[in-house]
Amino acid sequence: MRHAVSLLALSLLAAPALANDATGLDAGDIATAETLREQAMAGSAAWDIVESLTTEVGPRLAGTPADARAVAWARAKFESLGFDKVYLEPVTFPVWLRHREQAAVLAPAPQPLVVTALGGSVGTGGQPLQAPIVEFATLDALKAAPEGSLAGKIAFISNRMERFRDGRGYGPAVGARSNGAVEAARKGAVAVLIRSIGTSHDRFAHTGVMRYADDVPRIPAAALSNPDADQLVRLLGRGQEVTVSLDISAETVGEYTSHNVIGEITGRELPGEVVTLGGHLDSWDQGTGAIDDGAGVGITMAAGALVGKLGQAPRRTVRVIAYANEEQGLFGGKAYAEARAAAGEIDAQQLGAESDFGAGRVYALRAGVDPAAWPVIVKIGEVLAPLGVVTEREGGSPGPDVGPIVAKGAPWAQLAQDGTDYFDYHHTPNDTLDKIDPKALDQQVAAYAVLAYLAAETEVDFGRAPAAPAK
Amino acid sequence: MRHAVSLLALSLLAAPALANDATGLDAGDIATAETLREQAMAGSAAWDIVESLTTEVGPRLAGTPADARAVAWARAKFESLGFDKVYLEPVTFPVWLRHREQAAVLAPAPQPLVVTALGGSVGTGGQPLQAPIVEFATLDALKAAPEGSLAGKIAFISNRMERFRDGRGYGPAVGARSNGAVEAARKGAVAVLIRSIGTSHDRFAHTGVMRYADDVPRIPAAALSNPDADQLVRLLGRGQEVTVSLDISAETVGEYTSHNVIGEITGRELPGEVVTLGGHLDSWDQGTGAIDDGAGVGITMAAGALVGKLGQAPRRTVRVIAYANEEQGLFGGKAYAEARAAAGEIDAQQLGAESDFGAGRVYALRAGVDPAAWPVIVKIGEVLAPLGVVTEREGGSPGPDVGPIVAKGAPWAQLAQDGTDYFDYHHTPNDTLDKIDPKALDQQVAAYAVLAYLAAETEVDFGRAPAAPAK
Repeated sequence: MRHAVSLLALSLLAAPALANDATGLDAGDIATAETLREQAMAGSAAWDIVESLTTEVGPRLAGTPADARAVAWARAKFESLGFDKVYLEPVTFPVWLRHREQAAVLAPAPQPLVVTALGGSVGTGGQPLQAPIVEFATLDALKAAPEGSLAGKIAFISNRMERFRDGRGYGPAVGARSNGAVEAARKGAVAVLIRSIGTSHDRFAHTGVMRYADDVPRIPAAALSNPDADQLVRLLGRGQEVTVSLDISAETVGEYTSHNVIGEITGRELPGEVVTLGGHLDSWDQGTGAIDDGAGVGITMAAGALVGKLGQAPRRTVRVIAYANEEQGLFGGKAYAEARAAAGEIDAQQLGAESDFGAGRVYALRAGVDPAAWPVIVKIGEVLAPLGVVTEREGGSPGPDVGPIVAKGAPWAQLAQDGTDYFDYHHTPNDTLDKIDPKALDQQVAAYAVLAYLAAETEVDFGRAPAAPAK
Repeated sequence: MRHAVSLLALSLLAAPALANDATGLDAGDIATAETLREQAMAGSAAWDIVESLTTEVGPRLAGTPADARAVAWARAKFESLGFDKVYLEPVTFPVWLRHREQAAVLAPAPQPLVVTALGGSVGTGGQPLQAPIVEFATLDALKAAPEGSLAGKIAFISNRMERFRDGRGYGPAVGARSNGAVEAARKGAVAVLIRSIGTSHDRFAHTGVMRYADDVPRIPAAALSNPDADQLVRLLGRGQEVTVSLDISAETVGEYTSHNVIGEITGRELPGEVVTLGGHLDSWDQGTGAIDDGAGVGITMAAGALVGKLGQAPRRTVRVIAYANEEQGLFGGKAYAEARAAAGEIDAQQLGAESDFGAGRVYALRAGVDPAAWPVIVKIGEVLAPLGVVTEREGGSPGPDVGPIVAKGAPWAQLAQDGTDYFDYHHTPNDTLDKIDPKALDQQVAAYAVLAYLAAETEVDFGRAPAAPAK
């Protein structure tokens, strides 16, 4: 819906400058956005926020005591940054715990392997599982194996993720992680090992969530580091049977209620209409969740805080959301969308954006909005252009936690980041603060602050989103 | 000693070309060396050798079953490469075993830490040790602490190694690893944690040997990865006491006799005079010992094999040595030197070189020889120049395993390698085959083959070494 009547009435009251019809923004709005951009580029709070989260909380696997510490941290941080309304919304999910994981080649060349249990995996029953491995070049090759052909064996999926700036190598590769256990179990396998869904040569295994199906046994699932996967390929290439030992202790134990932590800069005219920014507060357990997604939390908190420090708030509310448990199934994003639907607030969602692709610079603006609102996106893109950001009419997708509300019709924007090295670090012990360039964070804060401010200030309604293109 | 009489006699017999008086080399010798260089650059056996060692044996901590597998591998590899004499010499040393290592911050921000026990460390007595940490910027700062001031505390030495092409950041930093436990124990500490002696931001802790003294208690010693050391520094910087849990299981158990594995290309005229190349066969346990020192073994085996494939062997014997247990105290190099001394063969050592600085390209030739033999080094350098190698009159040092025989007077040469990234990987789980550029290995094989051939072919005696400059 549009708010033409109320906006018209208000603009007649305030009317400091003439708003452009198509963008709903006037020269003063653009000047304010440019000031926000330059303030952020001169040095934002983002790095300090990430430093605080990753140092004082550290890793924060959903459902662990660190989850509660992270929620308390986020609430206090929003308050200290001057958000005028700070609150929690409950998010409930099953709790998965990693206790131990070890693997080794037993024969023909005994040596340890670097592995990590995939999120959600069962354990090996209190003792190491020992079995020969059978390699499949892809998940599809595993699917094509004869029924029962893997009885007593470990399936090893060896496909390698490719590196791209936009991370598009992830999609084709990640099926091995998500569905490898189900497909391997269908063929009778006792476990599945995958090459990490990651791009570096460092000897870190990448964790990440996997799933089971009710009609096949739940078998343990783990990822090997790229060098370890290479090693198994070399050993298998010598034509001998390769036997591996896999010892995983992990369990899914009950439910936990964490929280989406929300900070708002209340809109001066249309407080019930919201522009949302966010990142996810949880992380995997191995690193300190600096790039995934301390960066997103820091960037969007800092951007929101900058908007909050303006002489007056924008027309609409700017809402920054630190989502709970993104990693294990977008629980925070789903809970947020369901709560809005239950409250009849879907139409109040004006534009949603999430930063969850690391700490690299923003290079493109994309959006899913009513075509009538596209001139606003173009205008926002003009203010972002000095940051090296181009506006792209096609493609893009909302961030993971924005997806559920977009599925209910909410419009979205994407500030696409350079993710060239994102999959070198994500979901590994190596996701630590030192991987972040503070200046790159400032550029992102600049982009998010401009986006949030202008989207909240414009008189134009972003409408309902066209269906988001598949990523 | 010189062999002027016999060489003169032989050169009168063979005399295909006129040897230059100062270099003892003729044009045919240089042409042969150039051919060796070009053969190596066109593709050597080195990468395949390293691939074989790191895949089929993997990590090979001295004194473990993998040590014996490595010795058997090296013997078979020398034989398959056409060395005409292959034999073992015993090397005995204490056995140190790593069983387990874990650490965590307990307060104020509970989180795991990535650590590795230092080689030789005792354990924590079967249970985690929990104590506050006290930071020292350097080993010297720790030495300056008052007696008893660390009672019940863990000393944390936070100095950072600097990166240089020639690795000269290692010396000033490594004292914290070697002597940290002794100095911390003198002040009453219950354990010592050091920042890894390494240059990368990757979350790997670098192991390496440490020592104890008889007059102070033996306390556990471990290294933190660089990101983990940064994290402790940040936590301490907040002014609160930081308590750490450290759980190490490790032990020194009896002695083991391994072997230096030796392959020779027997000299055609002076078989009792030897030019030695080598690398060390053992590795730390965490990686597969690809750059430290599979590379050195592969390079020098391949270089020796190339010389062995010439139509005729050089005058002197070329001896390639895969040294035992370098990592824990140069045991192989010491045993080699002692065996030569016992047999009265020190004077038979014509020139010794070791490759133990990773897999980077060679950029300089240096030597410790009788000044009368310097023209030979210059001539060798001329043949190496197309490889990007410069000859340097000053500086340099023999490789670690060559040191003990140099201390007894043997001459040495150094083919200095680019070690810019060496300390990113060495002594970590990340020391794996993928870190090696096969073309860089070929360049090194070219350099070692030229060095070995010309040093073995020249009529000039390299004399006794000037004292090696301190590294």
